[in-house]
Amino acid sequence: MADQGTLAWPLRRALQLRSDEVAVIDGEVRLTYRQLADRLAGLPTGLRRLGLGAGDRVAGLFLNSYRHLEMWLGVPTAGMVVNDLNIRLAPAELAFIVDDSGARLLVTDARHWETSRELLERCPALEALVWADDGPPPDGRTVRWDDLCAGEGAAVDGDWPEASVDGDMLAAISYTGGTTGRPKGVMQTHGNLLANAKHTMLHNPLRPTDRFLHSSPMFHAAGVANIYGLTWVAGTHVIAPGFDADNVGRIIETDRVTVAVLVPTMLNMFLAHPATAGRDLSSWRLLIYAASPIPVELLRRALAALPCEFSQAYGMTEACPHVAGSTPEDHRRAVEGDPAAVARLASCGTPSVGIDVEVRREDGTRCATGEIGEIVLRGPNVMSGYWNRPAETAAAFTADGFYRSGDLAWIDDGGYLFIVDRSKDMIITGGENVYTSEVESALHEHPAVVEAAVFGIPDERWGETVHAEVVVAPDVEVDEDELIARCREHIAGFKVPRSINLRTEPLPKSGAGKILKRELRQRYWPE
Amino acid sequence: MADQGTLAWPLRRALQLRSDEVAVIDGEVRLTYRQLADRLAGLPTGLRRLGLGAGDRVAGLFLNSYRHLEMWLGVPTAGMVVNDLNIRLAPAELAFIVDDSGARLLVTDARHWETSRELLERCPALEALVWADDGPPPDGRTVRWDDLCAGEGAAVDGDWPEASVDGDMLAAISYTGGTTGRPKGVMQTHGNLLANAKHTMLHNPLRPTDRFLHSSPMFHAAGVANIYGLTWVAGTHVIAPGFDADNVGRIIETDRVTVAVLVPTMLNMFLAHPATAGRDLSSWRLLIYAASPIPVELLRRALAALPCEFSQAYGMTEACPHVAGSTPEDHRRAVEGDPAAVARLASCGTPSVGIDVEVRREDGTRCATGEIGEIVLRGPNVMSGYWNRPAETAAAFTADGFYRSGDLAWIDDGGYLFIVDRSKDMIITGGENVYTSEVESALHEHPAVVEAAVFGIPDERWGETVHAEVVVAPDVEVDEDELIARCREHIAGFKVPRSINLRTEPLPKSGAGKILKRELRQRYWPE
Repeated sequence: MADQGTLAWPLRRALQLRSDEVAVIDGEVRLTYRQLADRLAGLPTGLRRLGLGAGDRVAGLFLNSYRHLEMWLGVPTAGMVVNDLNIRLAPAELAFIVDDSGARLLVTDARHWETSRELLERCPALEALVWADDGPPPDGRTVRWDDLCAGEGAAVDGDWPEASVDGDMLAAISYTGGTTGRPKGVMQTHGNLLANAKHTMLHNPLRPTDRFLHSSPMFHAAGVANIYGLTWVAGTHVIAPGFDADNVGRIIETDRVTVAVLVPTMLNMFLAHPATAGRDLSSWRLLIYAASPIPVELLRRALAALPCEFSQAYGMTEACPHVAGSTPEDHRRAVEGDPAAVARLASCGTPSVGIDVEVRREDGTRCATGEIGEIVLRGPNVMSGYWNRPAETAAAFTADGFYRSGDLAWIDDGGYLFIVDRSKDMIITGGENVYTSEVESALHEHPAVVEAAVFGIPDERWGETVHAEVVVAPDVEVDEDELIARCREHIAGFKVPRSINLRTEPLPKSGAGKILKRELRQRYWPE
Repeated sequence: MADQGTLAWPLRRALQLRSDEVAVIDGEVRLTYRQLADRLAGLPTGLRRLGLGAGDRVAGLFLNSYRHLEMWLGVPTAGMVVNDLNIRLAPAELAFIVDDSGARLLVTDARHWETSRELLERCPALEALVWADDGPPPDGRTVRWDDLCAGEGAAVDGDWPEASVDGDMLAAISYTGGTTGRPKGVMQTHGNLLANAKHTMLHNPLRPTDRFLHSSPMFHAAGVANIYGLTWVAGTHVIAPGFDADNVGRIIETDRVTVAVLVPTMLNMFLAHPATAGRDLSSWRLLIYAASPIPVELLRRALAALPCEFSQAYGMTEACPHVAGSTPEDHRRAVEGDPAAVARLASCGTPSVGIDVEVRREDGTRCATGEIGEIVLRGPNVMSGYWNRPAETAAAFTADGFYRSGDLAWIDDGGYLFIVDRSKDMIITGGENVYTSEVESALHEHPAVVEAAVFGIPDERWGETVHAEVVVAPDVEVDEDELIARCREHIAGFKVPRSINLRTEPLPKSGAGKILKRELRQRYWPE
């Protein structure tokens, strides 16, 4: 069995190549790779002194920071398991996850101190907090992250004293879900995350001279996706505590960022911010975006205003996360007006080198080009399963070992993947399949529509009928009939909503900002 | 255990992305990816009809051709094992390898027909030849490669019917050695070759629009190194039967080659060829070279004459083969006169992303920066062992699982590896280590020296003394004393040869063109 490697390898290489170059920039803080390694070298001793052993889970509830980066680099290489928590979740949701993962330690910062104290009381397995912020902890006695890093075992002349870990060991448990049921812990091994590092760089090569802006939260797979790749090429991590259009612009300008990850909504906010136009953004060479396709109009504006190229990435926590993507070349062609390239902006690109992706029918056979089915995939990046959920793990894989993404899509003759819906959200009405994203797009054609969620509701005759929950702008007069009429202009009759519930309050959303159709649906479905 | 993938994955992706684009150009032959897949889809049936089963070895003895490429793509994905033979070996050496691998089939061409017939008689396990050339076989009845490919099982709409293979299965047994003992079969798995494909592309990204010239023989690891990577990005394979300065230039010009692999000696011949200056080589973007460092003077001339960038690769069959390399940026800096970059042209670059490389002392500890030791490495690309050689396999790995390369080197403060010698070739004289490559370089400072091989010979007082076998140009007057005096100008006294044997006949070389020091040494060492 060939050695797949551990998460210590990227840092080992960075120390060989650029030990005295800057590894991390976080506000005023600068750490060279040697300094970073010296801190991380102390961590295993520090964690063991708290009573932790191999395989123990260490939770995190904090903003992006250099200490947050250190958690991802240092905890798995100490033989333990990261369980990074979404700061947008409610305390009850956080408690469920901490109980489920069985984390013994929770690393936190000033902003999340109170919630963390609450979790410490609620969660029986949780033994202690770790203060990962500047200054002393509020209670004066909670152990500090910096003290854990001051344990024995400094890195010697670029060497990196590994714990006895291997590529098949668990590095992280990252929770997904909430839109469709209770959260599930995705088990990510060292080998999974290393494979992803290679795949992301085969999609978007990184360079030692890159300064990569971590503005996506590190509790999301997208925020972790480039940590190990960038370390492997010994580039510089630039940390933003979170997305703020003004602050991100200032960091890109001041710290000479070369690569940044922003979702299209953030990009829109960034371009609209009054300070952006006056900034020197000349260092910026690549913008990676995810989560949704980019409208060609936004792309045109962005290309006119920014010096960077564009690349889209599609992934999921279970794939750790990168699966497919489009390239700067795809975007250039679209902006030049190539109609095929413009159409492909709505895709999520082509499968990455290293990952085997198929679109399959319900019977498990492979779809023809253009035919809609479920995206399934396999590769060294795919999770080993869901933590303590053997049934859900078994259901997540096909008999021949492909992970079932639950995303419905078709693939064009150039290998581009077009996602049409989540399979759970698809409506079957009178034997016809209705992809809800298509109906939602039709509703959004009306300028008054602010939010729209489409799902099926029970119907004796048709099995299900198409229903929409729609939030309209407060100052606009619009009724259901007008919206339905507008839909008819864009989509087939059987796809048009039979009923619409107009509302003014926002739709319920998960911590990750996804609309909770499950909650909306509950009102209509007995059971 | 995450799925590392099989050698079918690159072709599966190429079919999704570019099924109707040209996959292979070989003289007048053009095959699209769909056509290539249709041929390969028939191969498993064709091979099974000859009685072969999973794990059986299929030997090859032929020039580069599209059929040779098909052997590397099609035999492992049919569940069998490639055993590609070095056409420069003598029949007795070939017979040893075929007997050792136990190959049941030998794929050959017109040029190697007689030798192959001889092997069929000599090797008991070998059952049949396969004619992989144009037209009918000379004996009128040997089975044709093209007929094997015409078996049932065509690729359907871009699907690729895999045999039941997995990433840990053997894909090839590639023989090395001959300079130091009987050849050993390096066991390369599907996972090893896929890992290498990723590593080579993380070093030198390849693009769908690339036309890659296969001029290195495919029986060498260097000739196979880019087959799977280029297929994965769905680029175009351009085949040269072998290196010929005129023919290679013609192919680059005619087939619009973008990437080519040439060793510095070939590059020299290519630049010196009278036809080169008149050619349109504007398509050529990257030259990858291996086997030896490039003299800065040759690099300057090449950069002035050619439109491409330069990248060096260092590897070994046991690493399948890529380990380290230097980049176009390294070469640009050297040509701009940066002294550190010029010095680093003599290195073999930095370890590749994905591979963990160290330089170690004899006691197994890690060398400090600048200290000479043995290069050891680990990674998913490292062979699973030597075929049927448990003792040699055990000796090839350290207790903590690193492959022992046998190359002595030091590593500078930027991670660049400088190889000084093969560890077996190092001379210990009076307690001092002498690296023979350094002495050979000193000898080459004399313009009359055509070839030089330095090794230790037994000495009662010093243990060993430094001896040189030197081939001088036939028309030059030079004696041992003059050469020794010249060496004294360049290297320390203890490194200067104590004895020199001047000769006019060339030094003995292996099939791979390496000087056989073992043979030269034999005369001086009683057993």
